[in-house]
Amino acid sequence: MTKKVQTAIEPTRQDDYPQWYQQVVKASEMADNSPVRGCMVIKPWGYALWENISRILDDMFKETGVKNAYFPLFIPLSFLEKEAEHVEGFAKECAVVTHHRLEAGEKGGLVPAGPLTEPLVVRPTSETIIGDSFAKWISSYRDLPVLINQWANVVRWEMRTRTFLRTSEFLWQEGHTAHASREEAEDRTRMMLEVYARFAEEYLAMPVIKGEKTPSERFPGAVDTFCIEAMMQDRKALQAGTSHFLGQNFAKGSDIRFQTDKETEEYAWTTSWGVSTRLIGGVIMTHGDDDGIVLPPRVASAHVVLLPIFRKPEERETVMAFTESLAKDLRAVAYHGRKITVEVDAREIGGTRGWDWIKKGIPLRVEIGPRDIQENAVFVARRDKSHKEKQSIKRDDFVAGIGDILDDIQTTLYQRALELRNANTVPVDGKEAFYRFFTPENADKPEIHGGFAHSHWCGSAECEKQIKTDLSVTIRCVPLNAAEESGSCVFCGNASSRRVIFAKSY
Amino acid sequence: MTKKVQTAIEPTRQDDYPQWYQQVVKASEMADNSPVRGCMVIKPWGYALWENISRILDDMFKETGVKNAYFPLFIPLSFLEKEAEHVEGFAKECAVVTHHRLEAGEKGGLVPAGPLTEPLVVRPTSETIIGDSFAKWISSYRDLPVLINQWANVVRWEMRTRTFLRTSEFLWQEGHTAHASREEAEDRTRMMLEVYARFAEEYLAMPVIKGEKTPSERFPGAVDTFCIEAMMQDRKALQAGTSHFLGQNFAKGSDIRFQTDKETEEYAWTTSWGVSTRLIGGVIMTHGDDDGIVLPPRVASAHVVLLPIFRKPEERETVMAFTESLAKDLRAVAYHGRKITVEVDAREIGGTRGWDWIKKGIPLRVEIGPRDIQENAVFVARRDKSHKEKQSIKRDDFVAGIGDILDDIQTTLYQRALELRNANTVPVDGKEAFYRFFTPENADKPEIHGGFAHSHWCGSAECEKQIKTDLSVTIRCVPLNAAEESGSCVFCGNASSRRVIFAKSY
Repeated sequence: MTKKVQTAIEPTRQDDYPQWYQQVVKASEMADNSPVRGCMVIKPWGYALWENISRILDDMFKETGVKNAYFPLFIPLSFLEKEAEHVEGFAKECAVVTHHRLEAGEKGGLVPAGPLTEPLVVRPTSETIIGDSFAKWISSYRDLPVLINQWANVVRWEMRTRTFLRTSEFLWQEGHTAHASREEAEDRTRMMLEVYARFAEEYLAMPVIKGEKTPSERFPGAVDTFCIEAMMQDRKALQAGTSHFLGQNFAKGSDIRFQTDKETEEYAWTTSWGVSTRLIGGVIMTHGDDDGIVLPPRVASAHVVLLPIFRKPEERETVMAFTESLAKDLRAVAYHGRKITVEVDAREIGGTRGWDWIKKGIPLRVEIGPRDIQENAVFVARRDKSHKEKQSIKRDDFVAGIGDILDDIQTTLYQRALELRNANTVPVDGKEAFYRFFTPENADKPEIHGGFAHSHWCGSAECEKQIKTDLSVTIRCVPLNAAEESGSCVFCGNASSRRVIFAKSY
Repeated sequence: MTKKVQTAIEPTRQDDYPQWYQQVVKASEMADNSPVRGCMVIKPWGYALWENISRILDDMFKETGVKNAYFPLFIPLSFLEKEAEHVEGFAKECAVVTHHRLEAGEKGGLVPAGPLTEPLVVRPTSETIIGDSFAKWISSYRDLPVLINQWANVVRWEMRTRTFLRTSEFLWQEGHTAHASREEAEDRTRMMLEVYARFAEEYLAMPVIKGEKTPSERFPGAVDTFCIEAMMQDRKALQAGTSHFLGQNFAKGSDIRFQTDKETEEYAWTTSWGVSTRLIGGVIMTHGDDDGIVLPPRVASAHVVLLPIFRKPEERETVMAFTESLAKDLRAVAYHGRKITVEVDAREIGGTRGWDWIKKGIPLRVEIGPRDIQENAVFVARRDKSHKEKQSIKRDDFVAGIGDILDDIQTTLYQRALELRNANTVPVDGKEAFYRFFTPENADKPEIHGGFAHSHWCGSAECEKQIKTDLSVTIRCVPLNAAEESGSCVFCGNASSRRVIFAKSY
């Protein structure tokens, strides 16, 4: 019997990945389940991560000329019906407000009262309600483009929920733009996809594949949906962001018309694009290990925790003074557009204190004891290395070098994730090999089954559907950089001109 | 006949204050009405102001140890019922979700389907749902205090709405804290009131009176409600922020118990405190003039607009180059924790361009023409002065001095508002004088009627109620700094020990 290594999280990723995920979320204090079905409580450690994600993205959006605004939470039912595919796509999962007050019921307690003449839907997305404003704001080509973003909560009444990955209520941003030409709208769609890809790779340390969705996987009502897809450590795909070219579909539904510079009248061309708190789930599943979460430094809820150590009461004052002074100096250091954030954990709870922070995934843990202080040094542990590996660093060198250490962790996390993806992305040809690849029991290489299959597809929705039915595998995207290559469909054998990415997914 | 001065906004404040307010909001492009009853669309110019307000406040909260989190939008009906006064206070204005999908109706179109077993209320405030989390998080005195804030949308189904001031959906922050002792919770309640007062005065340039609400004006379920009250230019009061000491009321309802350091068990002591997008309405009504909004520089949506002027096409390149270079230098200037924000408006629309920015209330307008450039100067107009008053300033002096100019505007706005309040706050004694003070037709000094009456009150809810019925006047607060003074109630003549503030209000 091999000796089992003790891990902070049980089960391990290997033993039960979905259960590992739930335990990691819990142990990190990122979020709780709430008493409201499918809705989560985002705790301070999780919310701080979302704040960093949203502030960085917000700056990136603004650099492209986008401005923030805010639109109503409620959408009149008739608005949702303005685009046929759209309402079809969302009708099955809408929270519906039907009353506007409560009154004493006949059997005691309160019951809904004051029925609304038209029910209101809690926004699952805001194309139709924002379209109504666009129709008012836009009358001439001079009013275009309109480039708007909204940070908001949305509700989709999901039947099976999982914290951060799929919740009935989630936080997101939704960008909505209107343009005078198809080309300009298409450019904006791709520009925002690039922003998402850059953000995922540079800040979340999450390598992504940029691609186009197949018609059956498009956003309801879109002409084209682009996405970034990342590979989690169980080799499933996570759709981490989408950018939609909506053509004139929503403009026609919402009557967004404008006078062109040739004095003709035309419908505007619109786009929408979004990322959500789902990204937090992606970060956890990309970088987490069997001891808990591992946060990428550039978005981490905090960068470093200082752990003062004093065994005798008389040591306390010296150690705390050194700790506070170090905290002050670190907080003055700039790191990727914000300042270093420092936690000081002076709880006298012995050995579990360090583990609490390992589970939370803070990039750096710094122990400060009387002996370190004598040497004007600190004892530094990095979350991307073994918890036993600690290094003594001179105090001032640590302050001067913390940015470099954090960036080194950032790079390590990205490289690890990239290697995992590369090792588990394989060209798969022929139906038999394809089915074997996605069926664990038959897998000849168990370590790669369930990864990204780079396979040929004829373009038929039937083949796509049958594969989904048989294997729960979908086409994640047609990669933007896919080379032309003659081949035959992995399902039906018909001609295909390029490979697409098949995978199981969240 | 006196010649009427042409104003950018009609009607003027003097002619019709409520209508002036609506026109100012519209002309500034701060917000639109939406197709959803009582809900507003906050447009980019309004939202930028809210972003500044929320970022500054967020920093202030965090300095006191508060952390952000996020709780569900929906509150189960049974939760709301946990505190009797609380549910009583909000039952009449709740949006109620009763279904979770839509399906084709018998008469065509979609109808609500999938009834929920327990209706969900869209949060009007979150004491009860956050209390549920607190009960899980808190078990020992070591877990206390818990200091949480949430930035969120809330819904109160108001019958009469007015943009920013009273809307069915609004944006706000709600702080919620739990403590081991009454004293600590009371201290926190007052600490947050101080934060609000400091923010209102230093950033919004809005002088406020800190005080305590009477029992009948308290937050439903609170033991004590503190508030800041500001005077608008029509001499009505605006409640600009509230901080509630909740005692153990909500802790009992939500079962928030903890083990004390003496190993007894006790209910926690809680507080809550909030400000909302209503503050934007307060800013407009405090500083706006008959030409539109006047934004306090420290929260302004943008600080300065550059207006390049070229009469001949060949001047364009030089003027634009000078403008862009100036914009770049200004954007590098730090001002109260953020950078100077610069708009460049190069639209060739002649005379209305400057007026657009006057109506939007931007603190500084800078004209840049070929002659200014020859002298390496710019032509600067301040929003707190007449639109005709413009000053030529050397370009580099302007860059170096813009912070001082903005602070000078900030101070001017605060002083003006303070003078208005001082001029319209008067001690009023005796029922007859009191009724005359609040009845326009009888006012002997029409320029002060409807201000803040500093009057004696016996403490009886009956007197308070009758005054409200007769005059629509309420006790805004018992000022915290009110001196002990023997007197007799302005309504019933009974003994009173200090003066309170009576006023009409928003």
